[in-house]
Amino acid sequence: MRYKYRSTTRYKDVDKMGYVHNSVYQVYFEEARIDMVKSEGYPYSRVEEEGIIFPISSARLDYKKPIRYDENFIVEVYFEYIKNFSFKIGYKIVDSTGGEICSGYTIHASVSAKDNNFCDIPEPMRDIADKYSEKQ
Amino acid sequence: MRYKYRSTTRYKDVDKMGYVHNSVYQVYFEEARIDMVKSEGYPYSRVEEEGIIFPISSARLDYKKPIRYDENFIVEVYFEYIKNFSFKIGYKIVDSTGGEICSGYTIHASVSAKDNNFCDIPEPMRDIADKYSEKQ
Amino acid sequence: MRYKYRSTTRYKDVDKMGYVHNSVYQVYFEEARIDMVKSEGYPYSRVEEEGIIFPISSARLDYKKPIRYDENFIVEVYFEYIKNFSFKIGYKIVDSTGGEICSGYTIHASVSAKDNNFCDIPEPMRDIADKYSEKQ
Amino acid sequence: MRYKYRSTTRYKDVDKMGYVHNSVYQVYFEEARIDMVKSEGYPYSRVEEEGIIFPISSARLDYKKPIRYDENFIVEVYFEYIKNFSFKIGYKIVDSTGGEICSGYTIHASVSAKDNNFCDIPEPMRDIADKYSEKQ
Repeated sequence: MRYKYRSTTRYKDVDKMGYVHNSVYQVYFEEARIDMVKSEGYPYSRVEEEGIIFPISSARLDYKKPIRYDENFIVEVYFEYIKNFSFKIGYKIVDSTGGEICSGYTIHASVSAKDNNFCDIPEPMRDIADKYSEKQ
Repeated sequence: MRYKYRSTTRYKDVDKMGYVHNSVYQVYFEEARIDMVKSEGYPYSRVEEEGIIFPISSARLDYKKPIRYDENFIVEVYFEYIKNFSFKIGYKIVDSTGGEICSGYTIHASVSAKDNNFCDIPEPMRDIADKYSEKQ
Repeated sequence: MRYKYRSTTRYKDVDKMGYVHNSVYQVYFEEARIDMVKSEGYPYSRVEEEGIIFPISSARLDYKKPIRYDENFIVEVYFEYIKNFSFKIGYKIVDSTGGEICSGYTIHASVSAKDNNFCDIPEPMRDIADKYSEKQ
Repeated sequence: MRYKYRSTTRYKDVDKMGYVHNSVYQVYFEEARIDMVKSEGYPYSRVEEEGIIFPISSARLDYKKPIRYDENFIVEVYFEYIKNFSFKIGYKIVDSTGGEICSGYTIHASVSAKDNNFCDIPEPMRDIADKYSEKQ
C-alpha cells in the first residue's frame, strides 16, 4: 500500500523555463513524507521530542515529465526497506491522470540527536513502514 | 581536471535543524554548473539563444556531512560522460579543509526548445566536457 | 468582502529558529493572490496570454506572530484601491482561531509585456477588484 | 557610512518571468545584514549564544528595476534608528553602475530567547549601529 499526498505546485516553485525547478521535487518528497507520518499519529514534533532525527544519507530523482505552476499532483510514498538503523522511502509523483512526473527515493539514518550515534528506529516508525511497505 | 566553484551558504538555505536543507545541494550543483560554462565563455544566455535546453533526467545526491549557514564551500564539477544527446556531470562539495560534504551527479538531455526533440550537443559544450572530463 | 485562501506551512518554509522565514510570507501573499484571480475565472495563464504583467512596485509586511511548520493558515485578500494603471492589494494572514499572523500589502503596476509601458488594467481584473474591494 | 555587501543572483532566485522573485530581495537584505554584523566581529552565532534574537516586526520593499540571474549587485546597509528595544535598518540594492534595483527597510525588536520579553540591545550591536548610522 502506498500513502498518497495531494498538493499543488506554487508559482514560486517554477524556474525561468516555467517548470517546477529540479530541486523542488525533494521538497515535495519531504512534504509527502511528513504528511504520511503525521497521518499515522507520529508527527515530526513527536519524533523530535524523542530526541531522534532521520537525516538523509542518499537521494535519487528521475524526472519524467516537467510540470508548471498551479498543477495538482499526488505523491505516492512507500517504504522500500527498513533495517536496524536505516530505511529507504520510495516516491512516485503523478498528475491527476496518473501520468508519472518524477520518481525517486531517500535513504535515512536513525540517529540520536544527543550524541549523533545511530539508534534503533522507533516502534511507531516501524509500524508505518509495515503498513506502507512495498518490495522493489 | 575539475572546475571549482566557491560559494558560501545562506541563512535561508538552512532548515529547522540549523543545517543546509537537503534540497539546496541541487541548487549548489546548478550554481556551480552555470558558473563553469560561463567561465568557459558559453553562458546559459547563449545556450538559450541557440534554442537548446539541457533538462535534468536524473539526479543523485550522497550526503556526507551536514553544514550550517555562513560556511564556505567548494563545488568540484566534472563530466563523467558525454554521449550524442546526453551528458552526465559529477559534483563533489567540499569544505575549506577538503572534507566531503555532499557528492552526486546530474544527467542531462540535449533538447531543442522548439520541438522538444533530442538534438546534438553544441560544440562549445563538448569542448567544456573535454576539458573537465573525468573517468569514474 | 475578502477572498480567503487556505493553506499549510511547509517544512521548507521554516528557518533555523523553527519559524516561517520572513521572506516566505510574500510567497503566501502571492499564492493567495493567484488563487483569488483563478477562482474568479481570470487565471494568470490568461493574463499572460493577453500580454499583460502586474509587477510589484512596493510591498509591506507587518509580522504579528511567528508560526511553525505544518500550521494551517488563511490569507484574507482584498483590494485597497484600483487606479488607471495600478492597484493595491491588502492581505491578512490569520491562524485557525482568527489570530493575526502577518498583514501587509502589495502595489502592482499594469504593464504591457511587449513594450513595458503602462497599460489599462483589464476589465476582469476590475471586476475582481470591485468584488473584493475594501476601504482602508 | 553604509556597509556594502556584494553578491550575485542565483538561477534559483528568478521566477517564470526570468526576473528575481519579489520575495528574494528580503533574502538579499538578510544576507547583507548578517554579513555586516559578522564583518564587525559580532556574528549571529555569538548573538544566539547570548540568548538574544532580533525578529523582524515590519519590512518594506520598493522595487525599482528588475534583475535577472547571474547579475552582480551590491546591498548598501545602514541603520535608520536604534532605540531601547528596537532598531530600523535601511537597504539599497544597486547594480554595478549604481543603478537602483530595490530599496527598503526592516524593523527589528530585541528579544530574549528565554522568555520572549524585550531586552536591551547588546552593546556590540549599538556600536555597529553607530558606525553605519544614517539619518533618513
